[in-house]
Amino acid sequence: MRVACWQAGQRPAERGLVARLRDAAAKAAGEGADLLVTPELSAVGYHLGRARTTDLAEPADGPLRETMSRLAASAGLAVVYGWPEAAGGGVYNAVQLIDAHGEVAAHYRKTHLYGDFDTATFLPGDRPVVQARVGGVTVGLLICYDVEFPEIVRAHALRGTELLAVPTALSRPWELVARTLVAARAFESQLFIAYTNWVGTAPDGYCGLSRVVGPDGLVIAASEPAPAATPPTTGDGKADGEALLVADVDPAALAAARRLTPYLGDRRPELYGDLTGPA
Amino acid sequence: MRVACWQAGQRPAERGLVARLRDAAAKAAGEGADLLVTPELSAVGYHLGRARTTDLAEPADGPLRETMSRLAASAGLAVVYGWPEAAGGGVYNAVQLIDAHGEVAAHYRKTHLYGDFDTATFLPGDRPVVQARVGGVTVGLLICYDVEFPEIVRAHALRGTELLAVPTALSRPWELVARTLVAARAFESQLFIAYTNWVGTAPDGYCGLSRVVGPDGLVIAASEPAPAATPPTTGDGKADGEALLVADVDPAALAAARRLTPYLGDRRPELYGDLTGPA
Repeated sequence: MRVACWQAGQRPAERGLVARLRDAAAKAAGEGADLLVTPELSAVGYHLGRARTTDLAEPADGPLRETMSRLAASAGLAVVYGWPEAAGGGVYNAVQLIDAHGEVAAHYRKTHLYGDFDTATFLPGDRPVVQARVGGVTVGLLICYDVEFPEIVRAHALRGTELLAVPTALSRPWELVARTLVAARAFESQLFIAYTNWVGTAPDGYCGLSRVVGPDGLVIAASEPAPAATPPTTGDGKADGEALLVADVDPAALAAARRLTPYLGDRRPELYGDLTGPA
Repeated sequence: MRVACWQAGQRPAERGLVARLRDAAAKAAGEGADLLVTPELSAVGYHLGRARTTDLAEPADGPLRETMSRLAASAGLAVVYGWPEAAGGGVYNAVQLIDAHGEVAAHYRKTHLYGDFDTATFLPGDRPVVQARVGGVTVGLLICYDVEFPEIVRAHALRGTELLAVPTALSRPWELVARTLVAARAFESQLFIAYTNWVGTAPDGYCGLSRVVGPDGLVIAASEPAPAATPPTTGDGKADGEALLVADVDPAALAAARRLTPYLGDRRPELYGDLTGPA
């Protein structure tokens, strides 16, 4: 199974994100990918502010889902995209995994909200583990800050997730999250992680560093660090640092890692009662 | 509060470990340390094999405890040492924290046993969080493989541990544990970790890489990597790579890290039920 990560440049007033996502999907399919992972809120952009993000919210089965279904079916690969989901009078920070036939295979709402924008704009999701099968691999979905919590990644591993697709919007100076926490998560919970970030302008600048990490904690594919300064717009509307990563997810590597160090089997769940108690 | 880590060379048939530990304690006290952390099974050595390790086992209040109490009181600092503990007809992989007056302040038995030697030799401990106060700081105790499990480090953080003292015996090729997992644990659970390893010969060679990491995930003090080849014995019986690290543990850094990214407060314990279920 082959996964691709579209590290997207995010700047205002440029060619529409959906059109660019379509290009990325076609390119990923051309490279043999079965699944394309895109950044957090990839269909609309992150950091539009609460009012604009809320304006763009639509239901899980709205026009954007139709667009994405056509896009995935046309490219012939599964796509994970993010958008502000309108539901029950509120808004969620959500992702859907659309399969290569255009069907919704999984729908996840961010459970760990980060900082002022998230908490002012979104309601938290309440389903920690959402999965779908793609190309014979069990794919789980998390969003950005979620993956920084070892508990929820462990819950995925315990329920059989083999590849965790993580759209994110990671700003400077949090490079340590991409470089250290993501590697630790993959290693300690013995699964693949496809961590897919924005790159380019933002209040603090998205730091890129998208990567696919294997269950041995080693990076299989990674983007170069984002330029420190705001990148100029180039003629074709791509930000410097925009990238498409491709990596193979080999279930044999999961089995080998779990045999070498049986973290999942060596846990002592009877001693972890504190983790589910009140804060 | 100042912590020291004695990265000890471990080779057979050299000057006794207790005598060398005494030297390290005196040196650490001379550098103003309040607490000395030593490697896993520091009083007897790791990888002596099951039979010899079992032969050396003694109760928590045995002669070794008396020796260590005198050693700590004489040097005037707290000491964490490890030994095979005989109790209830079995043997535990244990550590004790002796305070600067020579009193036992904490006693911990390794809860996560690693590999063939551990599981053939020791019974697992059943108390996940053991703490003591040293120099105004809450110190928790874990041993080696324990710290690779995010659950138990989180349990420490939730119960107020500020500095985690982790005696270890980490062999090649597991450098990723020291470099990535230990940093991730300190960052995600927002505490200091003093990870103290052996260096020198072993079936696979202990990799050194002892370190003190802060709650921002950055290394405050670290030893150089161990030499790739077995180090020669030098005249004074010290292995190449033996080192004493010293670092200050500033509670203000804990507060700053927890304010900047409130991981502990942003957890969703009501979603973590899978973590305490049967394997």
